[in-house]
Amino acid sequence: MAEIKKIFVNGKDEVEFFKQLEKRSGETNKKVTAVVNEIIETVREGGDNAVKAYTEKFDGKLPEYYEVPRDVINDALTEADQDFVDAMLNAVANITDFHQRQKSQSFINAKDNGCILGQKVRGLNRVGLYVPGGTAAYPSSVLMNAVPAKIAGVKEIIMVTPPLKDGTPNKDILVAAALCGVDRVFMSGGAQAIAALAYGTEEIPKVDKIVGPGNIYVATAKKLLYGVVDIDMVAGPSEILVMADEKSNPKFIAADLMSQAEHDKLASAILVTTSESIADRTIEEINRQVQSLSRKEIIESSLENYGAILICNTKDEACDLANRFAPEHLEVLFENPMEYLGRLDNAGSIFLGQYASEPLGDYYAGPNHVLPTSGTARFFSPLSVNSFEKRSSFTYYTEDALREAKDDIVLIAEKEGLTAHANAIKVRF
Amino acid sequence: MAEIKKIFVNGKDEVEFFKQLEKRSGETNKKVTAVVNEIIETVREGGDNAVKAYTEKFDGKLPEYYEVPRDVINDALTEADQDFVDAMLNAVANITDFHQRQKSQSFINAKDNGCILGQKVRGLNRVGLYVPGGTAAYPSSVLMNAVPAKIAGVKEIIMVTPPLKDGTPNKDILVAAALCGVDRVFMSGGAQAIAALAYGTEEIPKVDKIVGPGNIYVATAKKLLYGVVDIDMVAGPSEILVMADEKSNPKFIAADLMSQAEHDKLASAILVTTSESIADRTIEEINRQVQSLSRKEIIESSLENYGAILICNTKDEACDLANRFAPEHLEVLFENPMEYLGRLDNAGSIFLGQYASEPLGDYYAGPNHVLPTSGTARFFSPLSVNSFEKRSSFTYYTEDALREAKDDIVLIAEKEGLTAHANAIKVRF
Repeated sequence: MAEIKKIFVNGKDEVEFFKQLEKRSGETNKKVTAVVNEIIETVREGGDNAVKAYTEKFDGKLPEYYEVPRDVINDALTEADQDFVDAMLNAVANITDFHQRQKSQSFINAKDNGCILGQKVRGLNRVGLYVPGGTAAYPSSVLMNAVPAKIAGVKEIIMVTPPLKDGTPNKDILVAAALCGVDRVFMSGGAQAIAALAYGTEEIPKVDKIVGPGNIYVATAKKLLYGVVDIDMVAGPSEILVMADEKSNPKFIAADLMSQAEHDKLASAILVTTSESIADRTIEEINRQVQSLSRKEIIESSLENYGAILICNTKDEACDLANRFAPEHLEVLFENPMEYLGRLDNAGSIFLGQYASEPLGDYYAGPNHVLPTSGTARFFSPLSVNSFEKRSSFTYYTEDALREAKDDIVLIAEKEGLTAHANAIKVRF
Repeated sequence: MAEIKKIFVNGKDEVEFFKQLEKRSGETNKKVTAVVNEIIETVREGGDNAVKAYTEKFDGKLPEYYEVPRDVINDALTEADQDFVDAMLNAVANITDFHQRQKSQSFINAKDNGCILGQKVRGLNRVGLYVPGGTAAYPSSVLMNAVPAKIAGVKEIIMVTPPLKDGTPNKDILVAAALCGVDRVFMSGGAQAIAALAYGTEEIPKVDKIVGPGNIYVATAKKLLYGVVDIDMVAGPSEILVMADEKSNPKFIAADLMSQAEHDKLASAILVTTSESIADRTIEEINRQVQSLSRKEIIESSLENYGAILICNTKDEACDLANRFAPEHLEVLFENPMEYLGRLDNAGSIFLGQYASEPLGDYYAGPNHVLPTSGTARFFSPLSVNSFEKRSSFTYYTEDALREAKDDIVLIAEKEGLTAHANAIKVRF
């Protein structure tokens, strides 16, 4: 039986519940930080030998390959189950179709007076993609990171991923890698792989940005190396907030809540509804459906500790709660869901209507599934093509245009006490 | 006499010089971090009283105001020197004209099959702008942060800035604030002001993002609070790389190098030239011009320790060096400078031709002057309108469209072992 809290919204109890959720965010652990700092320094100095030494230390043995040969990657694709490949190809097509609309434009403003200003946009040169191993080896993650990177014009994607227990590469990951243009694959995991990407080793090329989720050692390594490389956001535990009224289907609500709860005991699945009857029927449905789900234990733990059903009075209140919580995933199961699109300010990805089930977004529809968690949807955005772009501005001025501007520039520079700035303008006239 | 190194590019000496420059990057100082962590916790608990207590502790007294009254801000504008106001208005117009071209488009993709996908872009709700005090109180900084924020649609800009030594607000800063729509101004500085913005106090509203440069305490506070709020990049010491050939004007080169060197003893000003004669004449010009510059001491120190003239053989080599160094500011004083625009990959802001002196960009031309330093131009971009936007994706699917997609989604979900994800699709059919 999943014991999920029922909370009648009163300005206090749900606030208390949200506070409890804040404690889930992985605060940086001093002990882990110390370990990771050492790994980073050792790999920085020792290169591939250091990486391999850590792999042997943590895994007990070295993997089948250090770099997975190109023909092994290609074979994984040709030998894969054709239905799986077809499904992945469809997903890649949808993800590509959506993301290519995000590409930034370079622009130029050539003025009448001969001056030219503009912004030049390019893809990052090289990106590192971390794919966790073990039970969290998700081919869909590969798609969601690699497809926008390639659309941005990233020249080279370097994937790092730990091997399976027997030391061989995860073939589903290789299929995904082959399907979206990953250039090279190295079999390494943990903080040592992140350090290798950030500094480069003899074999692993140095990258400009590292993306992809991982355990606390991986996440800590990314945070510590931010500035040496760019990183995507540091992902917290998964979240879903479902908004439902009396016409919503409790069967669907229950299933969607559990689809997020199954990620992690720390995942948070919340229903916000105007109908107590829907609340009760959803609880019944959860308890009925969970019996046949393989990750029952994780689901029940997540729902008990970090799940809740908030019962409020109006849909407007529900929107306010959603905006305050700023969920990673937000489902709107109200009638006329599109009407609420402008009202909902703070969510990573919004799912509208009874058939936009959140897993549709995880795998298939097109928008990215790498989303801000832990309330950061207030200011962070989904992973996008723009995450892999960099811009330079450029300025060309004629002598006449600078002559016209010089008094203004000199005045402001001198106000700021920056006389050499003023001088650089004055010497030209 | 400014002793600036002459280095003949040979694959070794300039590499060694670049390595020396890397040591300038402010590594996080353990002692500072400990102090700042304590300040953050104390302000988080103690609110405005804690902020004021720190201000009294560090400055010896409280400022004239905690929040600067609206009429004081307006008076600063009406009483300001009209030439200064006009110059600032021209700068605001140029900065606005450039930045409004950066605004992201929301988009919608309404498919034949009834599905609707899209991306919704909004400005952040509230942004905190830190403006340092003392000698580094730059009105131009206010413009460069506030103008793009307002274009993005940020609803409220909260400025925090320390007072002058006499406890009164810096009027030039208030003028800038009034001219670009800053909503509220608080007189507070240091890590305590950053903490106040990040968590909110009784009087200072909690923000979503904090931007603006500051000393090591401010920078450390921003880094530590990243994730609680978003921040702009952490700015390192200023840099300029000037590329010149035998036709460039040494008077201009010298002045431009010094305009950056005057920022900070840690600033780095580098000339890359194919002409040893230009190198020598530039050194002469530096020594001639520096005599009359008020920040002579800083300029000389910067040029001696972190400046250099690299003499290479071809313009192509010069471009390679520029790409490797990834400078904050890059000046191209070659003939036909536009030709090099595609060749130059890694620079914050590129200045083309003899009249695009770098201070033109700092104050006036339009592109932002908040730029990536310390080699991060490899992957970071200038501050932009996009820095103040957030996106949500949205997905609406019809029953038929989900039915068509369900086998693919279920297959991939089950491959990943996420059976509750598969279940959420299956329960709908």
